[in-house]
Amino acid sequence: MKIEHIGIATPKIEDALAFWRDALGLEVVHTEEVAEQGVRVAMLPVGEPRVELLEPTHSGSPVAKFLEKRGAGIHHVAVRVADIRAALARLKEKGARLIDEEPRVGADDCLVAFVHPSASGGVLLELVEHRDAAP
Amino acid sequence: MKIEHIGIATPKIEDALAFWRDALGLEVVHTEEVAEQGVRVAMLPVGEPRVELLEPTHSGSPVAKFLEKRGAGIHHVAVRVADIRAALARLKEKGARLIDEEPRVGADDCLVAFVHPSASGGVLLELVEHRDAAP
Repeated sequence: MKIEHIGIATPKIEDALAFWRDALGLEVVHTEEVAEQGVRVAMLPVGEPRVELLEPTHSGSPVAKFLEKRGAGIHHVAVRVADIRAALARLKEKGARLIDEEPRVGADDCLVAFVHPSASGGVLLELVEHRDAAP
Repeated sequence: MKIEHIGIATPKIEDALAFWRDALGLEVVHTEEVAEQGVRVAMLPVGEPRVELLEPTHSGSPVAKFLEKRGAGIHHVAVRVADIRAALARLKEKGARLIDEEPRVGADDCLVAFVHPSASGGVLLELVEHRDAAP
């Protein structure tokens, strides 16, 4: 089994591409209109994902607040990058609003930084750099 | 760049595992408590994803309704399977509520079927079978 894609609803693909293609650097390889579903799609290939289940351990934590506000469901998407500081610099240069200007240590002893959902069209995006291995 | 994981907020990991591990068949390879973030995590590896931007082409479409109700953001997660009918049978057997009991044709001429968000803890899950190539 493989994760094939993560579907992201957007009012206007062209606007969303300003983030996903231009700021993040992904490439559009396929666009299509699926008339039956009343939808237009653009596909941008990426890599090797994991499902991460997040359970709050106290009531004031970010995940607890998320659950209170939105209920259970998708919380964020994480992308692995080779150089998190370079990725943050590029995003900042492109005008993307960052939650973390500097990387910090996250799960699995990785360097992580969050990009604000307003930058990506409603998706909380996490950048992850593995410190002890090639990406 | 690679998609590393998709974060899913859940009130109780053990309950969520009934879907992700037991019904869907993924394996837990790592669990950890990240005290600073007030969170417990469980990692279940998966495969090769794409970002799919979805733009509605008429106001009554499912994606238009989603945008109206929730705003822009993550809409669904799709997993590629070798045999979509076998996957649906297994999910049904495990008690997961299905939106599509039978696969239908989706984007890229694949067979697709949706699993109800109530089955997965709030995530709209799409199963995808490529008909013309090995998975």
